[in-house]
Amino acid sequence: MPVLRKDPVVKRWVIIKDDQPFKLSQLQVEDTTPKGDTSKCPFCPGHEEMTPPEVLAYRSKDSEPNKEGWEVRVIPNKFAALKNEGELNRKLFGVYDKMNGVGAHEVIIETPEHFESFYTYPVSKVEQIIWAFVDRYDDLRKDKRLRYIQIFKNHGKAAGASLEHPHCQIIATPVVVKRVMEEIDGSKEYYIYHDSCLFCDMIDQEIAEGIRVIEKNSHFVAFCPFASRFPFEIWVLPLKHRADFGHISEEEVRSLAEIMSNVFKRLGRALSNPPYNFIIHTSPVNSPGIDCSKFYHWHIEIMPRVIKTAGFEWASGFYTNPLSPEEAAKLLRNA
Amino acid sequence: MPVLRKDPVVKRWVIIKDDQPFKLSQLQVEDTTPKGDTSKCPFCPGHEEMTPPEVLAYRSKDSEPNKEGWEVRVIPNKFAALKNEGELNRKLFGVYDKMNGVGAHEVIIETPEHFESFYTYPVSKVEQIIWAFVDRYDDLRKDKRLRYIQIFKNHGKAAGASLEHPHCQIIATPVVVKRVMEEIDGSKEYYIYHDSCLFCDMIDQEIAEGIRVIEKNSHFVAFCPFASRFPFEIWVLPLKHRADFGHISEEEVRSLAEIMSNVFKRLGRALSNPPYNFIIHTSPVNSPGIDCSKFYHWHIEIMPRVIKTAGFEWASGFYTNPLSPEEAAKLLRNA
Repeated sequence: MPVLRKDPVVKRWVIIKDDQPFKLSQLQVEDTTPKGDTSKCPFCPGHEEMTPPEVLAYRSKDSEPNKEGWEVRVIPNKFAALKNEGELNRKLFGVYDKMNGVGAHEVIIETPEHFESFYTYPVSKVEQIIWAFVDRYDDLRKDKRLRYIQIFKNHGKAAGASLEHPHCQIIATPVVVKRVMEEIDGSKEYYIYHDSCLFCDMIDQEIAEGIRVIEKNSHFVAFCPFASRFPFEIWVLPLKHRADFGHISEEEVRSLAEIMSNVFKRLGRALSNPPYNFIIHTSPVNSPGIDCSKFYHWHIEIMPRVIKTAGFEWASGFYTNPLSPEEAAKLLRNA
Repeated sequence: MPVLRKDPVVKRWVIIKDDQPFKLSQLQVEDTTPKGDTSKCPFCPGHEEMTPPEVLAYRSKDSEPNKEGWEVRVIPNKFAALKNEGELNRKLFGVYDKMNGVGAHEVIIETPEHFESFYTYPVSKVEQIIWAFVDRYDDLRKDKRLRYIQIFKNHGKAAGASLEHPHCQIIATPVVVKRVMEEIDGSKEYYIYHDSCLFCDMIDQEIAEGIRVIEKNSHFVAFCPFASRFPFEIWVLPLKHRADFGHISEEEVRSLAEIMSNVFKRLGRALSNPPYNFIIHTSPVNSPGIDCSKFYHWHIEIMPRVIKTAGFEWASGFYTNPLSPEEAAKLLRNA
């Protein structure tokens, strides 16, 4: 019998349809190994002039900006969804709202190596990438027009990546994004009832039950969420309550790099390097009206893109997942 | 400059990025013309034994159930997401909720003709399909365990269709789906402020402005919504305020068939028969606690699947659309 499970934060129901034995062959796993014509890749070293000038780079001391010699390089997106000049100019048109598309859209080129990925990186490389997230996050929040900083990654065509050279993206928006507002509203409601952080309580329950946990280290836990939308969906949460990703400590950065590195190696082995999105959900910035520091809890969601979403998901916000998170966690622990 | 627009119902922001001139070649339009090996198609006439027994069929008087001679045929989905036997058995597990996957999942085979579609149907065929929606809707709501009846269609592989023979689906769930609860919450908030239905006010504004309207007839209007998520997104709304799709009148069925037929012919001409999802959003059933009859307004959303959604959309609930609804409506009016 299929089972309905509810995500306690956003009250999203999923159908865990594991009444038939699960076979990996049910999934559509794109081969995400780079095929690479690196000669035309705008993110490969030596091609720095093909991109807008860098806003951040970790590079050797004897190298020049926008030349070779970098290890991580951050640039404005050439095809930016939002632009950083101008005023918001918010206007009402009858029942509708409209404003200028002010914001930021950056690309974090993770490595000069075209053929590497989170499936192959050493921990030190993952750590470097997380530091780039932190540095850009800290810088972007200084722009008082911005309300939310969304860090995310598309890996593979099925996940929406248009270039295969490993990169993440940041889009900073002048409004708080809908999904995060839903998480804030849901965790606020829980806080009012229980006087505790829903995410902290969820972490306690996951660690106590153990069946959905993949890895745990000194500062983080990775588990397949109870109401997983997708096969092998993975959430990574800091053990210490913090709403704001920007408040991550040095020790936590190291610990996060370790757990992310392990989790991606397990996922890569279990599913032959599948396409995925990962996203960081954190509290809004420059939003004194939204004080969620007591009850919101920043985290990472990793969503392998191995099944199709269709009309029912779009219509309902329901998801149908052929693999239980308990089984997924077991497969990942054994991978 | 890109522009941010807000959907007034669910407060979803979209980025209309029409700062570059739009070209149809920007879209990824799958050719959805059926290629058809009809000899193995379970929905073709003569193959009725390949499906579960029908729950409804419009068929000639001299034909037998589960044999040829039908014009529309409704069957339980062989690979049902939810099952109609058993009790809900709702249980709490710490912070989590779980219940049995009780519900219904049906397939509406629209026509015996494998190679037809909404792009080619005469009005009378569309009318027949809408009557099948109404008849199944009326029957399913009698099951008091069910709270929501979701009617939807996946057309083309990019929209999640696994069989090309024209069909719609119905999934009835024992909980009200998240997207509809969001619409109910949003329109309730508006009703409290304005003492009027947000959808009715939106219809008035659309008809007065005209720039996003594609078609209007005696009972319905079709327009590209102000905060369109996708290029050529289309909403169809009844002019008369009604929360419940099941209350549609005979005259309205005819009028809806006419506008749907026209709208799909325009879409097919403008974009060479693209893949799409369409969904009907209506008020919950068997939910006396949710009285939204004054402020909710049933409607149809048509979403062509011609651009990819990636990490940013998943992370944020934002959408990026390269075509303004005003331009889309113009292209559709001229198609």
